[in-house]
This record gives sequence, structure tokens and C-alpha cells, in this order.
Amino acid sequence: MSPAVTEESRAASDETPIAKRILIGEPLTSEELEGQLLPKKMALPIFASDALSSVAYAPQELLMILLIGGTAFLAFSPWVAAAVIALLIVVVLSYRQLIKAYPSGGGDYEVASTNLGEKAGVVVASALLVDYVLTVAVSVASGVDNIISAVPGLNPWRVELAVGFVVLIIVVNLRGVREASQAFAIPTYVFIASVAVMVVTGLIRWGLGDAPVAESAQYAVQAEDLTQAAIILLILRAFSSGCSALTGVEAVSNGVPAFRKPKVRNAQTTLALMGSIAILLFAGLTLLALITGVHYAENPCHLIGFDCTQPQPSLMAQVAAATFGAGSIPFFIIQAATACVLLLAANTAFNGFPLLGSVLARDGYAPKALNTRGDRLVYSNGMIILGLAAAAVLIIYQAQLTTLIQLYIIGVFVSFSLGQIGMVKHWRRELRFVRGAERRGAQTGLLINSLGAAFTVLVLVIVTVTKFTHGAWLVFLAIPILSVLMIGVNRYYRDVAHETAMDDTVHYGSTGDVAIVLVGRLQKPVAKAVDYALAANHSQTLALHIAVTKDEADAVKSDWELHQMPLPLVTIESPYRHYATPLIAFIEQYREQHGSSVVTVYLPQYIVGHWWERLLHNRRARRIAQQLMMVHGVSITLVPWLLDSSGLIYGRSSRPLPGDDRAGRIASYGLVAHTDDES
Amino acid sequence: MSPAVTEESRAASDETPIAKRILIGEPLTSEELEGQLLPKKMALPIFASDALSSVAYAPQELLMILLIGGTAFLAFSPWVAAAVIALLIVVVLSYRQLIKAYPSGGGDYEVASTNLGEKAGVVVASALLVDYVLTVAVSVASGVDNIISAVPGLNPWRVELAVGFVVLIIVVNLRGVREASQAFAIPTYVFIASVAVMVVTGLIRWGLGDAPVAESAQYAVQAEDLTQAAIILLILRAFSSGCSALTGVEAVSNGVPAFRKPKVRNAQTTLALMGSIAILLFAGLTLLALITGVHYAENPCHLIGFDCTQPQPSLMAQVAAATFGAGSIPFFIIQAATACVLLLAANTAFNGFPLLGSVLARDGYAPKALNTRGDRLVYSNGMIILGLAAAAVLIIYQAQLTTLIQLYIIGVFVSFSLGQIGMVKHWRRELRFVRGAERRGAQTGLLINSLGAAFTVLVLVIVTVTKFTHGAWLVFLAIPILSVLMIGVNRYYRDVAHETAMDDTVHYGSTGDVAIVLVGRLQKPVAKAVDYALAANHSQTLALHIAVTKDEADAVKSDWELHQMPLPLVTIESPYRHYATPLIAFIEQYREQHGSSVVTVYLPQYIVGHWWERLLHNRRARRIAQQLMMVHGVSITLVPWLLDSSGLIYGRSSRPLPGDDRAGRIASYGLVAHTDDES
Repeated sequence: MSPAVTEESRAASDETPIAKRILIGEPLTSEELEGQLLPKKMALPIFASDALSSVAYAPQELLMILLIGGTAFLAFSPWVAAAVIALLIVVVLSYRQLIKAYPSGGGDYEVASTNLGEKAGVVVASALLVDYVLTVAVSVASGVDNIISAVPGLNPWRVELAVGFVVLIIVVNLRGVREASQAFAIPTYVFIASVAVMVVTGLIRWGLGDAPVAESAQYAVQAEDLTQAAIILLILRAFSSGCSALTGVEAVSNGVPAFRKPKVRNAQTTLALMGSIAILLFAGLTLLALITGVHYAENPCHLIGFDCTQPQPSLMAQVAAATFGAGSIPFFIIQAATACVLLLAANTAFNGFPLLGSVLARDGYAPKALNTRGDRLVYSNGMIILGLAAAAVLIIYQAQLTTLIQLYIIGVFVSFSLGQIGMVKHWRRELRFVRGAERRGAQTGLLINSLGAAFTVLVLVIVTVTKFTHGAWLVFLAIPILSVLMIGVNRYYRDVAHETAMDDTVHYGSTGDVAIVLVGRLQKPVAKAVDYALAANHSQTLALHIAVTKDEADAVKSDWELHQMPLPLVTIESPYRHYATPLIAFIEQYREQHGSSVVTVYLPQYIVGHWWERLLHNRRARRIAQQLMMVHGVSITLVPWLLDSSGLIYGRSSRPLPGDDRAGRIASYGLVAHTDDES
Repeated sequence: MSPAVTEESRAASDETPIAKRILIGEPLTSEELEGQLLPKKMALPIFASDALSSVAYAPQELLMILLIGGTAFLAFSPWVAAAVIALLIVVVLSYRQLIKAYPSGGGDYEVASTNLGEKAGVVVASALLVDYVLTVAVSVASGVDNIISAVPGLNPWRVELAVGFVVLIIVVNLRGVREASQAFAIPTYVFIASVAVMVVTGLIRWGLGDAPVAESAQYAVQAEDLTQAAIILLILRAFSSGCSALTGVEAVSNGVPAFRKPKVRNAQTTLALMGSIAILLFAGLTLLALITGVHYAENPCHLIGFDCTQPQPSLMAQVAAATFGAGSIPFFIIQAATACVLLLAANTAFNGFPLLGSVLARDGYAPKALNTRGDRLVYSNGMIILGLAAAAVLIIYQAQLTTLIQLYIIGVFVSFSLGQIGMVKHWRRELRFVRGAERRGAQTGLLINSLGAAFTVLVLVIVTVTKFTHGAWLVFLAIPILSVLMIGVNRYYRDVAHETAMDDTVHYGSTGDVAIVLVGRLQKPVAKAVDYALAANHSQTLALHIAVTKDEADAVKSDWELHQMPLPLVTIESPYRHYATPLIAFIEQYREQHGSSVVTVYLPQYIVGHWWERLLHNRRARRIAQQLMMVHGVSITLVPWLLDSSGLIYGRSSRPLPGDDRAGRIASYGLVAHTDDES
């Protein structure tokens, strides 16, 4: 009785349009999922590009803030950079613990909701969702910035370029995990290698006494006059901006299920590797920037002597130009690799956001549509939402990196902090139950995560204080709104589930059913509906015409007699040209006279092949159906009539049925408009 | 058996939202239509405002074109104006014949299609539709121009004002014919009276030797150097622009059914009255413009000495300012009345366009939705289309009168010409059959309409030659496109009617019907569907679960046994996560094994109360239904489940049915979102 659906249905299951098929690729079975999992060398570029690419902007933003105080403030930069690196080490170690304890991919969200309760979990989820959007926006903005640094002529199309890249990333991602990984692995490795070569080259030249000099070193910086307190705040702000180097560390913890087995070990190794590379690149690049004397100003017009109508080249471009020469081949390789890896970082969010969205949907905090795997086993809906949100942010902030960075990392540190606090609670509970080696493991975990919690909470406070008035208040508005929405969605699903759960009140045996065939004019679609209604053996079957004008009513009556229709026709008057209202009144009255009945209303419905045909049929049957759906004890039977033009019949029975007496053609397109009409 | 639907259903028939009710007013029965008909004194302002209001721009555009050749060319203006007036007399006389011969309101469209065939009729209809749109655009643009002439500070909001007025007119018209007439009658009469007073005052002052002088008389006009041929072309162009005074004459012939009885006599009288007033105002205003020496330039910068960054006041405003003094009370009265009557002219199109649209829909040349009378017995859809098209034209041409007038009147003269040629053919045929007094009437008709045909064809040629390169080519593109569309729509409806007409192939007695209840998870909505399916006594009833994962399938199976569901459950596997495809395969296979059957698929469907709830349910059931509708011999039964939040149950039977066991509340809003879900 259960027909096996085998290879042939891969072709037959063509429910999607050709265009989508070409763009997205062939559908996959649920079993093919395992083959989509990531080996380490593929997981690194996918999950690490976010953390690694931040090297492209974190040193730049760190130095830029310090330079507000003038070139003398650059002396603070090694200490600020050291603080960022220390924090990065603590966070990486903390997350290795988290991955071990919660390998299911829920990451901070799971840790916080398990250990700190629903509300903490929802706040983490909101914070992460916001930050995924900003990761895409910041990475794409920085990528475009680096492209413009190499090709200044593109400056007028900054926003268009940025939005174009977001669209490109959406399309690439809709094709699925593995293809994305293959396409994206090479540039990450090229980026790591080329930046490493640049740092080493620069250091060697410095060691040999031939230190490279950046072009911007010649421009003095117009410094602000600062009070003691303002100096401290400035250093903290520089630290906050430098902390953008930490974003992306959490991506691995959210992506553990996408790793090959042993998942935990592989994820931990990837995380450690990623952390080490990020630290080396961050430290190297900051050092090289100091050696070459790059002056990068928040407002380029504060660089005395610089033509500030031109785009200010990124720090990466300036260092590369100083080391290898502007316009040299290595310069272009570095800029291209930087731009690529930044776009890859945006791609990281396209892995993380839909995964988190589906976890939220599974838990009932987000619309179920986010948990519907598309053909290519990726969470298409989540990707599209993320892409649209990021494009909107890029358009609103005109793809300006420095503005966007003000909103950034709040979300990450909310999530870090709550995750780490959750981990502390987790280990404390563990310690009550475990003994021996496991106890020692838990003690180490408690120590690491306590340190992690202390650090991340402290940084969250610093970031909040230094960024709030610079635009981050928007994030503090967005996170609670999202959280409240999620709680609301959860309550809604809970209510629906409660309402529809099977219980003792369910009983069967409704009797006395009556079928009403709605008749506009007597045409074949109506005859087909009559035939089907009679075939279903309802206790009683009648035809009903709602008469707006007397002429129409008379025409239907005489046609009805002429064609000797095999069931009685009832006509009711509707002087106000309404259909549903008198029909509902009729049903009520019928029930008063004949006792409670289940009523099935038969509505003939035209099926058309093209969207424009819908414009040519009125929607009366659909509107009637919408009204009837709200009437107690009524169900609607739609009897389709395929217009010739629709060109669509799947299959054919041995004996022709009324209304199906024409050659069936299989359409070459998947989506079919359908509409209804009864006149 | 036919429940009388009486007064109470006026309240109960509240299928529309409150907001619409307030905006549009109470619904009317079809019988109340006669009460909506127009007495002459109301019909005049409604149908005549178009023809009368053109006095506000026709003399201006006529003189403006002549002034391209310099002030000396003004000497031609009396002759050009005389030609326009002669033409107007001929056209009015011709249309009196047409109204008598074809009083049904089809106007030129009916005449052309009856006498010259379908294609001529469709071309006339297209031409008229285009011209209705342009009437709205030109009238509103000119109205706004006159408002700006009185209040120059509004100049920056020219387009916004114009679009705002279009929206206002749509709303007023959606409230229905009579209210529109009452609200609009006064300004038309004020306009006629005030312009008449102005003309008389001006002429008296002129007679007394105190001729009023327009302010622009002081500015010399920068004249073009013209060849002999160019001079002739210029005079013909001036005539073409002057002919815009003729537009609106056809409106009465299209609106005969809206007149009170005797319809023909009343319509003819209204037309004659309208023609006389139009001639007097046109002649008077042109004369007064010549007396006051108004210099109105196509490009205001060609007025030497005039500050051409300021808006150029309309001819009406200049004459009024010269006669009564700028800023005087009579000046403002004239400007206000002019603006009002121009907006009324736009309103004329809102009477004509939907009437023509409904005639076309009735004849099968336009979508049926145009023949659906709204609550207020007006053709709402046509009005909305006209309004949107006019607003689009106003935005595209930035509400510039001189540009818009280039596109104008082509359509009217296409329609005039074909209508008159059709009338000639009509009288010739008549002459073959009638004798006596009727014959004399037909001979008079033939004479008048032959003259009309000759004149209008000649003018059509002139208008085409002089306007084509000035933008009218767009109209020559639009008319054939619309015509082809209409023919296409007609062929479509004809095919559908042919396909669905009752004939000998219709037979009844389909047997062996099977009901399939689609089961996602076992919840109350499914139980309700099961109950309804069993109540309908199908030959066979079974439940079907499409299993994407094995866990899900097992859960449904064990729930099914646990709740002792009263029908068998069949599970089919769908590794590609499709639903419709395996279901269709199952139906095919079932038919192979059990013979041809009518299949009814029961789909539980959630009904929700708010649009946002739809986002929280996936559309799976709807997508499945769309696919199933295309399968031979399948009908879909939607079993609604009203979620508590929908708050909507109409009525209630004495015995509760499964799924309806909660308090019914009547919703205070009319439109209800509905969606579906099965998980």
C-alpha cells in the first residue's frame, strides 16, 4: 500500500521552476545529509573566516580611535592590542569548554537557556541574530572598502557594490554547504599566507634597517585636546573597537553539527587553530602598521595635507603599499585576498544565522518556516531574511565601515557573557555529581569559564559605555524587541498546540450531512461539481443559486430544467449583491428545519495556466470560501476545472470523468496560478 | 425553501470593513438604482464640466502656439477660434443624432462596432479609454496651474497637489453618482456665471474705452523665424490645440442611461445647452485675451523681461487680474471656480471610464471585474484603474499642462471620426427601409453626420500631423496595444465559454469515490477532518501520512493506534521532502488497483484572525492543494479549524461538532486572513 518512491521521483518531483533548479542545483534526499558534513580543512575557511577577516579592520579601527588623541597616543597601541589578544585567548579557551559540554550546535543560546532559563536564552538568541546581520554588513563594507582602496574609481558605487555582494552571497549559499565551502576555501588560505608573508617581509626589512614607510605617515593628524577622563575613555574606545577581532569565535560553537565525526574534537581543533592564526595576524598587522607609521583618521579631512575628497585607503592597503609598493602585484594579491576573506566572513553568518533560526523554530521561538529545509538541505528562508536585513543596514548606513563598527560586537558580547555565566553554572552543577578525572575536568572548566565570564562581562560594560552614544543604542533597542517577539511567538505556538492536542472531548459520528453545490451559471464546471457531489453519497445534496437579478435567476432555472439536472435547485435572493451572507443565512435556516448537520459546500474552481488569466476571472468563489470557512460545521469542497490554456493534467483515469475530456499535457513550468470564477 | 432576505440583512450583510463603510457609505439594493438617476440640472454639471472646463486651457494653448511666431500672429487668432467654434457646432449636432439613434450609452463604441465591425469598435474603445486618462491628467494639471496662478507659493508642490486631487476624486466617486453630483453642481454654475460676468465686464470696459490690460502685455515675445510652410503648420497646430475645447462632447453620449426619462430628450437638451455655453465662454475668453493683450509663452523664458523662474500665470488668471485686479475678490472667485470646474472635468472621466469599462466587460473585451458593481452601484474597479493611470501620467509628465496637451484629443478624434463614419453607414442602411417622416429624419441625420465625419476626419489628420512628433506618438502606440489586448481578452472569454458550455458530453454517475484525509500530525483539526470525511459516506475513506522522516512516521502511527482512530492509516515515504508528488503517485496507483474513482482529499486548514499569524504557519497544505487541483478526477475538501485567536464563528448548531467546542465570538472586523498548516 506504500508505494516506494525511488530514483524516478527525483525527476518527477519537479515541483520547482526550472530557473530555481539551475540556480540552486539538484535536490538531495534527507539521507544525503551526512555527505554534506565538513572535514576540518573545509570547516576552517567556513567558520574561521569571520574571526580571521576581522584582522582586516580591527587594527585599523583600534589605531584610528587612538589617533583622535594625536600621534603620541600610538604609544598606547601595543598595550591595547595586548589586551585584545589576552581576551581572545581567554574566549577561545572558554569556547573549547562550551563545545565539549554542549556539542549540539546550540552554542551560547543553548547554554544560556539550559542554565539561566528561557529569558536569558532568548536574549542570547536575539543578540546573536542582530550580530549576524551586522557581521554581514561590517564584513561586506570592509571588503568593499579594500576593493576601493585598490581601485579608487569604484568609490561612487560603494553602496551598490556592497548590496551586490550580499545578493551574490545569498545565491551562492542557497546552493548549499559543500559547494560554498569548496568555492570559498582557497581565498582564506591565500589571505592567511599573503598577510603572513607581508608581515614577515615588513619585519625583515625593519630588521635590516630598511623599514617600509606608509604614504600617510607624511600627514600630521589634527589631534583633539583631551582631559584625563577623556583620555581613559579614548583608550577604552580603542580597546572596544579592537575587540571586533573577537567576533566569529562563537560561530564554531554554533556549527558543531556541521563537522565530521568526531565532531567535538574536530570543532575544538578548528577553534584553537583559528584562534592562533587570528592572534598572529592581528599582532603582526598592528606591529607593521606602527612600523610603517600609518595615519588613519576617523574623518580623513583631519589628515593635514591629505586630499580628503578622495577615499582614504584602508590600513591593510596602506601597509601593503608600504611593504610591496602601491600597484605592485603582491599589493593587489593582498587586497584581493582581503576583500575575498571579508566576503567569506559575511558567508560565515549565512551558515550561522539559518542554523540558529532553525534551532529557534524547532524550540518554537521563531516561525516554523525557518525550520523547513529547502531542496539543498540548507535553511533557505533564514538566509533570505539575513541577506535582506544586511542589505537594508548597508543601505541605511551607506556602507560606511566606521559607522557600522559602532553597532557591532555588542550582540556578540551579550551572547559571550550570558554563555560564559551559563557555563559557570553548568560546571558548578556538574561538580556536585562527578568524581575522579571528570571532576578535575569540571574544575578546570569552572576555572576557565569563570575567567571567561569575568572578562566578557567587563568588556561588555566597556563596550556599552564607549559605544552607546555612538549608535549602539539601536542595538540595545533591537535586542529587547526581538526577545519579546520570540517570547510572543513561543506563547502563540504553545496555545495552538494546547488547543489542537487530542483529548477526551474528541468524538466521531457526526451525521445528517448535506451537500450544497453553489451554482453561478449552469456550465460544465458546475455539472462536474454536481457529479462529484452525487458520487460522494451525502445524506442530502442540493444545488443553490444566489440571485442578484431576477433575469439571471430565471436563466439558471430554465437551464436547470432544460438539462434535466439530477438534483433540486434552490434559489435565494440577494438584493445587496452579497453571496456569503445569504448563503450563511440559508445554512442556519436549513439546520433549524432539519437538525444539526455537517454542511459541505461544493465550489467549482477554474485552474488557469498563467498569472494574467487570473485577472480575467473574478475572485467571487474564493471570497465566498473565505467567509464560509468561518461558519460552524461547514467544509468547502473545491472542484477544479482545468481550463485548456492551463495545459496541465497529471495522469488520467481509464474512464473519462466530466470536465476532463481533453488531451492532458504536462506543463514545463512548475508554478501554476489558480483562481476561481463561477460566471 | 427560499429564505427571504429582507431589511435585516442590510445590517447582517456587513462583509466589508468599517473603514470602507464610513468612506463609501451604506450599500444600496439593485432596485435603488433608478433613484440614482440624474435630472438635467444635475446631469449638466456632471457631464458638461469636461467640455466647459476646457475653456480654461483651450484659448491659452491656442494663443500660446500662435505666439511662437510672435505677436503679429495674434491676428490669426479670431479665424482659428472661429474654426474651432464651427467644428464644435458640427460635432454637437452630430452627437444629437447619435444619441437619438443609440441611446443605450455605448456611444461611439457601440456605433462603430455595430456599423463598422468589431475592430473599429475596439479601436474606438481604446482611444476613449486613453483619452479618459488624459482628460483626468490635463484637467487636474490645468486646475493645479490655476491654483498656482492664484497662490504662486504652491509651485514647488505642483505634482503632489495634482496627485492629491486625483486621490480625492477617486474617494468622492467611490461614494456614488448622486452625492458626487450634489457636491459638484454648485462650482460648475459658479464657473459659468463668473466667467460670463468677467467677459461682459471686460467687453463693457473695452466699449467704454477703458480696456483692461494684462500684466504680460508689457513683455515682448521672442519670436521664431518661420518659413511659409512653418507658418501654415503653426496655424494648424494652434487650431489643434484649440480643438481641446471639443473634448467632453462625447461624454453625454456615453452617459445616456444615467439620465432620467425621457432619456434621449434630456440628453439631447443637455448636450445642446452645454455646446452653447461652451461656445460663448470660449469665444468670450479668446476675445478678452486679445483685448487685454495677454502674452503667454510656451517657454516663459521667451517673454523678454519676465522673471522666468516664477510660474507663468494661466491665461484665465491673467485675464481675471486685468479685468478685476490681481488679488481682488472676483479674481479669487474666478480662479477658485476654474480650478473646481477643472477638477469636475476630471470627475466626468470618472463617470465615463467605468461605464465604458463595464460595457466592454459585458461584451467580453475587458476583465469581468470591471462589470462588478461595488456597494454604491458604481463601477469601483474601473475608477481605481483610471485614477492610478492618471496619477502615473501626472507624475511622469510632472503635471506640465503644455506637455500633456500634446497627447490629448488624439483619442477623442479617433473616436469622433469612427463614430461619425459609423453613423453615416447607419443612416444609409436606415434609408433603405424607412419611409415618410422617418425617412426625412434619416436624411437629415445622414447630412449632419456626413458633415461631422468629414470635419472630424480632417481634424484627426491635422491633429496627427501637428502633434505626432510633439509626444502624441505615445498615444498612437497605446491605442493599438490596448486594442490587441481587448481582442485577446475577448478570444479568451469566448474559448472559456465554449469550453464550459453544457453539451452532450456531460454525463453523471461517477462512482467508486474514495476520500483521503491528509495527516501531518494527529491533532484535533485532523480528527475533525476524519469526522467530516466519515459523515459524507464515501465508498472508501482512508488516512494518509506522507513521511519525510521515520521518527515522524512512527509518532503518527503510534498516536493513531493510541487514539483508536476509526479509519486505516497509510504511510508513504517522501525522501525528497515533497508532499504533492508522492500523494499524486499514490492516487494513480490506487486507481490502477481499484479502478477509476473520484478522489476527495481532505485537508485540515487553520483559520487565523490576524495577518501576522499567517507568518507563523507554513503554507504546506495550500501548496499541496494547488498541485492536487491539477490532477484528473480529484477534488479538495478544506476542513477549517478556527483558532481561538481568530475569534470568529458565525452561528452554531445545537449539537457541538468536534473542533467547535468553544465560545463563538463575532468579530468586529470584516476581512479575515486564513492560512493552513498541518504540523
